[in-house]
Amino acid sequence: MPTFQTVRGMRDLLGEEAQIFTLIFTKARENAKLYGYKEVLTPVVEPLELLSAKSGEEIRQRMFIFKDLGERQVALRPEFTSSIARLATTSLKTEPKPLRLFSVGSVYRYDEPQRGRYREFYQSNFELMGSSKPEADAEIILLTNNLMQTLGLKGYAFKIGHIGVIRGILSEEGVDEKTQNAVLQRMDKKEYDVAFKLLESEKCRGKLEGLLQIKGQDWRQTVGQIKAYVADCEKAKVAAENLEEVLRLVAESGNPTINVEPAFARGLEYYTGLIFEIYIPELEIALGGGGRYDRLIEVFGGEPTPAVGCAQGIDRVAIAMQMQKTTLEAGQGKRVVVIPINDAVKSEALKIAQTLRAAAVTVEFEVMGRKMGKALEDADKRSADYAVIVGERELKDGAVMLKDLVHRTQGTVAVDQLAEKIKS
Amino acid sequence: MPTFQTVRGMRDLLGEEAQIFTLIFTKARENAKLYGYKEVLTPVVEPLELLSAKSGEEIRQRMFIFKDLGERQVALRPEFTSSIARLATTSLKTEPKPLRLFSVGSVYRYDEPQRGRYREFYQSNFELMGSSKPEADAEIILLTNNLMQTLGLKGYAFKIGHIGVIRGILSEEGVDEKTQNAVLQRMDKKEYDVAFKLLESEKCRGKLEGLLQIKGQDWRQTVGQIKAYVADCEKAKVAAENLEEVLRLVAESGNPTINVEPAFARGLEYYTGLIFEIYIPELEIALGGGGRYDRLIEVFGGEPTPAVGCAQGIDRVAIAMQMQKTTLEAGQGKRVVVIPINDAVKSEALKIAQTLRAAAVTVEFEVMGRKMGKALEDADKRSADYAVIVGERELKDGAVMLKDLVHRTQGTVAVDQLAEKIKS
Repeated sequence: MPTFQTVRGMRDLLGEEAQIFTLIFTKARENAKLYGYKEVLTPVVEPLELLSAKSGEEIRQRMFIFKDLGERQVALRPEFTSSIARLATTSLKTEPKPLRLFSVGSVYRYDEPQRGRYREFYQSNFELMGSSKPEADAEIILLTNNLMQTLGLKGYAFKIGHIGVIRGILSEEGVDEKTQNAVLQRMDKKEYDVAFKLLESEKCRGKLEGLLQIKGQDWRQTVGQIKAYVADCEKAKVAAENLEEVLRLVAESGNPTINVEPAFARGLEYYTGLIFEIYIPELEIALGGGGRYDRLIEVFGGEPTPAVGCAQGIDRVAIAMQMQKTTLEAGQGKRVVVIPINDAVKSEALKIAQTLRAAAVTVEFEVMGRKMGKALEDADKRSADYAVIVGERELKDGAVMLKDLVHRTQGTVAVDQLAEKIKS
Repeated sequence: MPTFQTVRGMRDLLGEEAQIFTLIFTKARENAKLYGYKEVLTPVVEPLELLSAKSGEEIRQRMFIFKDLGERQVALRPEFTSSIARLATTSLKTEPKPLRLFSVGSVYRYDEPQRGRYREFYQSNFELMGSSKPEADAEIILLTNNLMQTLGLKGYAFKIGHIGVIRGILSEEGVDEKTQNAVLQRMDKKEYDVAFKLLESEKCRGKLEGLLQIKGQDWRQTVGQIKAYVADCEKAKVAAENLEEVLRLVAESGNPTINVEPAFARGLEYYTGLIFEIYIPELEIALGGGGRYDRLIEVFGGEPTPAVGCAQGIDRVAIAMQMQKTTLEAGQGKRVVVIPINDAVKSEALKIAQTLRAAAVTVEFEVMGRKMGKALEDADKRSADYAVIVGERELKDGAVMLKDLVHRTQGTVAVDQLAEKIKS
């Protein structure tokens, strides 16, 4: 019989890789809670119409769509925001604002598989709904910053822009919203020539090309340039001032590295204000990103609700941690193998294993019934720190044999001092 | 525009319910690690042929099956064991035995929705592969016992049986394997009349009916009865002795409440030895269960590998915790609202929020730009413990106003003593 494989584009996460993923889940949860975000678990399978309401045509063609046995059109979620928007317009509609929600889990896109890109991947997602204030935008960036810090990532930088600046310029030049969306989509893909060809007015093209030249790490200076550049365009000016205020709050309270790029765009049409992505020098793709989307909740049938949110690509964060050789938490504690010398002491040995676990020591019990030599050899292979050998003679004195597998020493230790001895 | 709903049979987990679910995820992970189990994350979407290899026809008709864009027949996993068996026969084939693996996540079955039964539900799953020894079976029960303990569940009991005893009797009477499977499936559903009608021999029926009468909480006594009852049936006797040995190890080292029921059966055909389920008095359905399946790895194309495993239904465990009013961990810490008195001190206020979070205090920052009275009113509604009010006057002295919202007191506190004060 042939062995089975995973579905194309899906993969198993094993060993250290699985540990890194679950560490990221844990850190995302811890960080979210420190900022007062509440976790919500939404279904992987959602109505197609829900997932289509927000997403552009492009993402729709990349969804896993099928009919359930009740002939309903459903799909695997390609991201979390639609599900959260559903919550905000139904079950959580009457919750007092601001509403802070987060999720951690798997999402699905039918992309061509390549290194670091799978059809099932993991995201952490944060949404802050109800506030239009710059401190809300700042909070989302600070939260992302804290998450990157706690994960031990080094040298990361935020790329920050503002859709309002670009749309402000385009609106001033009389470009309709549909064309604006198309232009932004091309700009997101860095297809600037194609983007500019969509614009009829030479002046408008020039204005955007000029904006593209403005970028810098000194946020004060760069925002100053932007403000000067759009001084004669009211909407863009207001947007630039909003960008300035968010940057000021972030810089003064958290001081992460920031690259201001006002002509940077993100594909999804629903962004209305600040947008950002986060990068490390070693990787070309963003580890995550987000922005303000003040009109999305309306699209889902709710009251107009300003909102800002972000998501991290956990697969990419994991790659970043592996590239930077970020060490996993040392807190894993000592690992011990407990070996009964014969069948007569098995229960006693199990009991000792239980006591050690109650003291937070990781214990692998010898379940193979192997001879002592073999069992110890295997403990070495598994890089256990200690072997606890349970024999009748020592048990009579309430003791066991403790073998230090790292320092190659051994001695008799009283059972009631065993956990302490191992942990010291 | 109408608001959106979840897909029929799926639901959102919110608020305290979501907290209970993620607490169970965390405790399952912690327990697994203490026993030396390694986490694996396998895909939600698996090849249909993999998921069909093990499962009976019944479960196959209840799977979410569809074709992906590459026209491959795939399905959403209805449980974890098939994916783990795939790993054991592919990526982890050459790993030294025993192999201890666990998973926590969502699984999918197209059942008629009812209270506590959803089409997307959550499981924790543990597998110990490579050992045929009774201490392996004992470990799986002890691990389950520890998990129930750490979750604070009270009055739970294990129902324990042994497929080998039933099959031993049926084999002795010349019943073929296919009929045995059918009989076991009916017995699992407690449809004993239907089960017995499948048997031609009157003697065989009588033998099973007699076995049904044997059950008890005193494991020694009950196993004694079973051994006497099957004394003339070699295979059943060997199985009863194996059951006795596992029970002895479990009782002597962990001492959970055990109901021995030798005629208890579990639906899935692949069990070969000990089987068990776990119950609380308040609920008729099992919180979880498992057993020994020594031939499953072969079905998946691997070498013959003895194995034992178990799964917990996290939805049911959550219901049990809610019914028993198990309190969530107190460890949530103090919750604080930070309110800047005006725009000029926003950055300073954000900085103070960051400092508190670094000291593990949960901080919700006032992002609504509300007036002080409104903001404090909202903090009360959210049951915050403290409000930190950041104003220019106090800041000049390196201090803030701290309002104790529980005891209705307030005072000025130096910023560098704030975290300590709040946590004390």
